[in-house]
Amino acid sequence: MRTPERSVELTQVTEWEDGNARTVQDSLAAEEPLEIRIGDTPLTVTMRTPGHDHELAAGFLFTEGIIEFADQIAEICPVRLKGSPGSNVVRVELRNADFNAEDLQRNFFAASSCGICGKASIEAIRRRGLRGPNPDFHIAPELLCQLPEILLSEQAVFSRTGGLHAAALFDTDGKLLALREDIGRHNAVDKIVGWALLEGHIPLSSHVLLVSGRGGFEIVQKALAAGIPVLASVSAPSSLAVKLARELGLTLVGFLRGRRFVVYSGQYRCISAGVCE
Amino acid sequence: MRTPERSVELTQVTEWEDGNARTVQDSLAAEEPLEIRIGDTPLTVTMRTPGHDHELAAGFLFTEGIIEFADQIAEICPVRLKGSPGSNVVRVELRNADFNAEDLQRNFFAASSCGICGKASIEAIRRRGLRGPNPDFHIAPELLCQLPEILLSEQAVFSRTGGLHAAALFDTDGKLLALREDIGRHNAVDKIVGWALLEGHIPLSSHVLLVSGRGGFEIVQKALAAGIPVLASVSAPSSLAVKLARELGLTLVGFLRGRRFVVYSGQYRCISAGVCE
Repeated sequence: MRTPERSVELTQVTEWEDGNARTVQDSLAAEEPLEIRIGDTPLTVTMRTPGHDHELAAGFLFTEGIIEFADQIAEICPVRLKGSPGSNVVRVELRNADFNAEDLQRNFFAASSCGICGKASIEAIRRRGLRGPNPDFHIAPELLCQLPEILLSEQAVFSRTGGLHAAALFDTDGKLLALREDIGRHNAVDKIVGWALLEGHIPLSSHVLLVSGRGGFEIVQKALAAGIPVLASVSAPSSLAVKLARELGLTLVGFLRGRRFVVYSGQYRCISAGVCE
Repeated sequence: MRTPERSVELTQVTEWEDGNARTVQDSLAAEEPLEIRIGDTPLTVTMRTPGHDHELAAGFLFTEGIIEFADQIAEICPVRLKGSPGSNVVRVELRNADFNAEDLQRNFFAASSCGICGKASIEAIRRRGLRGPNPDFHIAPELLCQLPEILLSEQAVFSRTGGLHAAALFDTDGKLLALREDIGRHNAVDKIVGWALLEGHIPLSSHVLLVSGRGGFEIVQKALAAGIPVLASVSAPSSLAVKLARELGLTLVGFLRGRRFVVYSGQYRCISAGVCE
């Protein structure tokens, strides 16, 4: 897969090995701030790997619940500021959106009136109207096991820098539909969801999302927002990620490595009932 | 090292391996929201692994530039809300602090008037008055290579859950002074810095900070805030992390594995000049 031009930077470094030091050329995963604006109002600044910025902005607005539909985005355009080498500002024009800069926090605090806790965090997700994903989607365990290898073989920037998170979207047959890399785990997922939103593929009701990093609460939340039924990771999920997945009926898979994985929630989608002890 | 009680949660999961599925008991890294309040004003909510919450709050306030000295903290206390199983709210009373909820963003936007870019991000750090760490600190490469093994042997929660980031502080002789684990990389570092602040050890001018995850811009910023001269990681840094480390004179080490590492900045602290080609 092609590496976006600004996503890698070259630099001279010193490599030390067994007492010997030498100067070598190294590739670094690029990190630059991105400001997302709604009209003229700055909404957030996130550190991200440049590339697919429009998808990142669209995905962020959607997974954070600021918009619900693609057609609420009237326009997304880069803003080039004086002195910036590339554009690190994306301006989004919304329509039919009741946007309020405080919305991001309001849901959380409204739900947490009984106390700040995991339960309140899950309640905040429910208040956004997120529902359980497609119960009729299934994927064979053997197919699931093949996905990390496909991801790795396509991870262009990681192979050069060793320093990026990836998120990849697969269809029912294990075909790779989209792959995005970013220094931020959340950003990689937002880029995937933003891509799907802008392409008209939401909800992703017959899809598997594979992420390279740990599966935390916010990754599960973003997968649910996109309607994804199966979220898989090569690493471990957190307690709250598992609770949210169980409450809303998402299939959550962890430690997907070689011919082994662990299912934390919704196992019926990938393991037939008769197989279990 | 002792595992804090609330940092691990047990649950039943399904393990699939080579066509066989079985139900097993699994340990999950705990994730719960933590609200940090300044007096009665909510400042931020962060998803964190419970344990060492006071250190996390103190470290966050310090590394984000809201306070400069430990004695600006008059009191830190947990707030137990009705319905919460444990406390997920920490209230901090400040003195002699010109706190303003907008401070967190103000520095960034003030510096970015010329454009949102990496340069502006670094400029924002400079405006906070952060300076380069102790130029007289040195550590032998052989000693540096031993640190990851020490970290791993002490990482209590990781060994049970496979799902936590760690940050560890070492002295000149490679002695482990403090180790903190968290589902969030930033939180693990904030807990270490908060511990040092509350114990009166700031600036950490003769110390090495080792982190388990990738070394991004914000991790470098937090290390600089604490005056740490050497930041090492088993993984890759980002481009902006390297730029910031070089501009402010922090020694940044990556890919610290076995008897090999890469130095991205300030190599004089760990490699003597004559060794290089």
